[in-house]
Amino acid sequence: MRAAIILAAGLGTRMKSSRPKALHAIAGRPMLAHLIAACEGLFDRIVVVVGPEMVALEKVAAPHATVVQHERLGTGHAALQAAPLLDGFAGDAAVLYADNPLITRATLERLVAARRQAGLALLAMRPADPARYGRVLTDANGDITRVVEWADATAAERAVGLCNAGVVCAEAESLLRWLRAVSNDNAKGEYYLTDVVALARQDGERAVAVEAPEAELRGINSRAELAEAEAAMQARLRAAAFEAGVTMQAPETVFLAADTVLAPDVVIGPHVVFGPGVTVAEGAEIRAFSHLEGARVERDAIIGPYARLRPGTVVEARAHVGNFVELKAATLGEGAKANHLSYLGDATIGADANIGAGTITCNYDGIAKHRTEIGEGAFIGSDTALVAPVKVGARALVAAGSVITEDVPADALAIARGRQVTKPGRGFRGKGK
Amino acid sequence: MRAAIILAAGLGTRMKSSRPKALHAIAGRPMLAHLIAACEGLFDRIVVVVGPEMVALEKVAAPHATVVQHERLGTGHAALQAAPLLDGFAGDAAVLYADNPLITRATLERLVAARRQAGLALLAMRPADPARYGRVLTDANGDITRVVEWADATAAERAVGLCNAGVVCAEAESLLRWLRAVSNDNAKGEYYLTDVVALARQDGERAVAVEAPEAELRGINSRAELAEAEAAMQARLRAAAFEAGVTMQAPETVFLAADTVLAPDVVIGPHVVFGPGVTVAEGAEIRAFSHLEGARVERDAIIGPYARLRPGTVVEARAHVGNFVELKAATLGEGAKANHLSYLGDATIGADANIGAGTITCNYDGIAKHRTEIGEGAFIGSDTALVAPVKVGARALVAAGSVITEDVPADALAIARGRQVTKPGRGFRGKGK
Amino acid sequence: MRAAIILAAGLGTRMKSSRPKALHAIAGRPMLAHLIAACEGLFDRIVVVVGPEMVALEKVAAPHATVVQHERLGTGHAALQAAPLLDGFAGDAAVLYADNPLITRATLERLVAARRQAGLALLAMRPADPARYGRVLTDANGDITRVVEWADATAAERAVGLCNAGVVCAEAESLLRWLRAVSNDNAKGEYYLTDVVALARQDGERAVAVEAPEAELRGINSRAELAEAEAAMQARLRAAAFEAGVTMQAPETVFLAADTVLAPDVVIGPHVVFGPGVTVAEGAEIRAFSHLEGARVERDAIIGPYARLRPGTVVEARAHVGNFVELKAATLGEGAKANHLSYLGDATIGADANIGAGTITCNYDGIAKHRTEIGEGAFIGSDTALVAPVKVGARALVAAGSVITEDVPADALAIARGRQVTKPGRGFRGKGK
Repeated sequence: MRAAIILAAGLGTRMKSSRPKALHAIAGRPMLAHLIAACEGLFDRIVVVVGPEMVALEKVAAPHATVVQHERLGTGHAALQAAPLLDGFAGDAAVLYADNPLITRATLERLVAARRQAGLALLAMRPADPARYGRVLTDANGDITRVVEWADATAAERAVGLCNAGVVCAEAESLLRWLRAVSNDNAKGEYYLTDVVALARQDGERAVAVEAPEAELRGINSRAELAEAEAAMQARLRAAAFEAGVTMQAPETVFLAADTVLAPDVVIGPHVVFGPGVTVAEGAEIRAFSHLEGARVERDAIIGPYARLRPGTVVEARAHVGNFVELKAATLGEGAKANHLSYLGDATIGADANIGAGTITCNYDGIAKHRTEIGEGAFIGSDTALVAPVKVGARALVAAGSVITEDVPADALAIARGRQVTKPGRGFRGKGK
Repeated sequence: MRAAIILAAGLGTRMKSSRPKALHAIAGRPMLAHLIAACEGLFDRIVVVVGPEMVALEKVAAPHATVVQHERLGTGHAALQAAPLLDGFAGDAAVLYADNPLITRATLERLVAARRQAGLALLAMRPADPARYGRVLTDANGDITRVVEWADATAAERAVGLCNAGVVCAEAESLLRWLRAVSNDNAKGEYYLTDVVALARQDGERAVAVEAPEAELRGINSRAELAEAEAAMQARLRAAAFEAGVTMQAPETVFLAADTVLAPDVVIGPHVVFGPGVTVAEGAEIRAFSHLEGARVERDAIIGPYARLRPGTVVEARAHVGNFVELKAATLGEGAKANHLSYLGDATIGADANIGAGTITCNYDGIAKHRTEIGEGAFIGSDTALVAPVKVGARALVAAGSVITEDVPADALAIARGRQVTKPGRGFRGKGK
Repeated sequence: MRAAIILAAGLGTRMKSSRPKALHAIAGRPMLAHLIAACEGLFDRIVVVVGPEMVALEKVAAPHATVVQHERLGTGHAALQAAPLLDGFAGDAAVLYADNPLITRATLERLVAARRQAGLALLAMRPADPARYGRVLTDANGDITRVVEWADATAAERAVGLCNAGVVCAEAESLLRWLRAVSNDNAKGEYYLTDVVALARQDGERAVAVEAPEAELRGINSRAELAEAEAAMQARLRAAAFEAGVTMQAPETVFLAADTVLAPDVVIGPHVVFGPGVTVAEGAEIRAFSHLEGARVERDAIIGPYARLRPGTVVEARAHVGNFVELKAATLGEGAKANHLSYLGDATIGADANIGAGTITCNYDGIAKHRTEIGEGAFIGSDTALVAPVKVGARALVAAGSVITEDVPADALAIARGRQVTKPGRGFRGKGK
């Protein structure tokens, strides 16, 4: 059994934000959610320590338990708030930070494995610029002898490159005992989590360091650092997409979500943005300037350029969604086409139907949303408004420029527009004419 | 009292442009305007030296004075053209270059401060690759002994890393006297501004070098260098936005204007372009692929994706502008929504109004522009054309697909569309049917 | 006389693609086409060796000859497949790789020039990380003594930085003779092209190395390497555009095609994508978020933001194409404007015509495409549908919101919309009203 205590109470003063720090997103997902995803499966119980009035964070944490740290008395104090939820927990417990969203599952696995060799395992790193970090001092066997704050370190100690990343793992009961023993007798009057290392050593336990890349462990304290973490995550996601057989002409202009699923031979043009919840099947093409969220794109479909797929969109195999077209809660059937300047919301469109340029589903009457259903092989002429709820039958033909307010049976023609009147000699008398 | 002489007469042959070099823009503002902005407040009088037929530059310089250099006889000759406008000027004068648009106010302040310590102050830099620059030679006290052109320098002199950036500051009357004394007895037959250093020394004046980063002082001589300067400016603007508490998922794809004002907790998606004159208030979100210019966005408004706000746009608090929507000289009231495929030009839209998909204000009759007014809480059905000038009253309802040519009173329903006719059996007979 | 044998039979297993590797595109053009373009003019005969069932590649190769390698027995075997097409060919022959699309004409010229000095010339490079490449060993005169595979190389040989890029050039008849003599007596049982170097030496021929930049010669074996090659090609194309006098505010967000033609003083905003076949004349402006393919843009025209020009588009001088506007097989006359939310397909629009917002050409009836013709100085009111085939005469005026189904004579007014009915007190009763 293993438990994870995630510290997420930070406000992130340097973020200059009214939102809790752990709520800021990377790759379309709050930092806290990244860390929870890395923990799930490896840890049997996850407890998130939040600050007061962080209801939004509690929702992100759910179904995992949250506990509120009411006073900000340091990381040791924060971790200790989880104690009531770990009462009698038999197994190990790790303490993690919500502002380390790039930490990988592999690193966490090495941490918990190292814990089996020693009473306490600590994540450490060798940053390019170690200046401000606490140093991890080790003996000839590589065991940790001491973690020293930079302010307290001698010149020789500061010359050590191994730095404290703050993440610890120990047997749960011992960890809680040490946390309770941590004192706040220091300059800031705070309870430091790191002090458990010395307390473990006092108990005669070995403490070992597990090294991981700086990129995973660097904390996020400003908007600029948030953007750097985003860039690192995007690099990871793009590399995985390439590995899966995806073509991106300009990967640096494509933004993926943490959960984007892309099949082999998917081709993605420059300037494409994926929000959460997108799946794209083999051979589909996502052209430049497209924006997808909560959408499923089937085999050999063509999306874009300038297509926006909003949540609830399904584009079936070989269907086309063209430029300046928005789909929301809509299914576009196999081989169907909606190529220009259209809004298809709350709609079901049959296979091989053709949706003309400038087609608008009028799905909202100001009170509720209503559905539009278009049958297989129907042809919707350009510049048509479909006033929902409305059904257009299979193979029906709607004349261009119509406002369709009544159902159109299968195989019928519907026309709903004004008649043309032409008045000779009353043409345009514009500037300079 | 302080005066700045800005040399802006260059054609920039390597730019291969028909426009004066100083008119090329960085962050949406001509190079010359950047330099003037850095000077204003610090210098009491600004004189811009332009070439013949550079009326566009004179407009950029206004209300500051311009003087024309009719013959291209060198930088010393160019600076001297400002003499008539500095006749009897009591105080210091600096000579600057319009193709140094990245120079910061802090650097200019250090220049004028250094001038108080010496008869002449000169901006210098230590470029990564100093090869082609003139070298600044100094004595044991750090005073400038000589500025030597690279072509004339010995191997030992070329080994000096301190390079001449060309910007000088001296007491105005002395500077003009030295400029008049500069000779053109050299290979190119030009009058070089740099020669004033030797003339100042001959007059027994001390000359001191003020070092500044190469990035501020590198001249712009080609389109590639213009793009590099743009990148440097964007990096500066993005860093300032982060510092102010702005979130940008992909800062490298966001282009800011020099005057963009962004409040804390503004969130900007990938691929967003700001033209001049944009202000965004706290908590507002600018989604991917948006393009804003001359627009004010109030608190918690949501813009985009794919929204274009043109000059004269005001989006009030909590209003939404959605995809493929263009606003021009339009106000969208508090909480109002225009979410899809619309053009709202010369329009005033009341609070909580709902503008359906495909709404078009027909604001132009080929001769003049006319206004559309929509009252609070009005509901404009989708695919509606509003033929301006026209007013739709508060809480009025316009049926989908209407062409509104007459005013609609408050609380009224207006409908203006053809009636639907359905003809059985006359449906679509397309390919393969 | 010179012949080029291009090896293009590779499947590119690491690409994880169902398409032949040489069919993957860089700058909008298949890799193979890049190599062919570099060869044309320099080589009199070009033979492309493809794999079985690579019809798409044969089309790319046309009008050049292709020959199929039915079994994958190594590069030497692949090159030998070209033998029947070089029977009796008097002159030199080079063997090239389709996955080297960045190789420049200048490098190929140096290769064939070197061949005149020696029996065999070989392209070599000095990669930043030479580890896995075969090494090229040379004598005191710089002649190649041996090419050794990395696996077979001694430590001393591995310390040599000069690496084999695999491209060879020799007298055709000799090359074919050596290729026939290559054995497959090695670990993989393959026929290696490189073995011809040793065979040439056995024949008493000198072999010389021609060094070229690694960037030109690095093979493309994965999607990530494909993206790196794309980035290198884009850097080349952007540098050439700058050199030609083009302004790009953010070159890193502009994607050019290999055949894009841009005149001096063309200004390109951020986030612009060029597909194949685009020409832009002097002074034209391509604004942010535009997408052009198969289009000609004349002097001082303004395109975008968010304009999509599809194949067959011509935008004449000083015409404007604005936001969310799509043109396909359409000509927009001098000074004409189509500024908002329009689809103009299969259309000819006269000079100075004004196309209102939301104009749609209904060019497709489900079976065939039909043309729309609009005369000079015509004014098409906003939100108009033009049901093709249809002609609107010069200076004609179409009222906003019309559906035009019949031709409109010159100077006439056409109106085709429903009449407005207003019903007091039946306004919007939405949420909270």
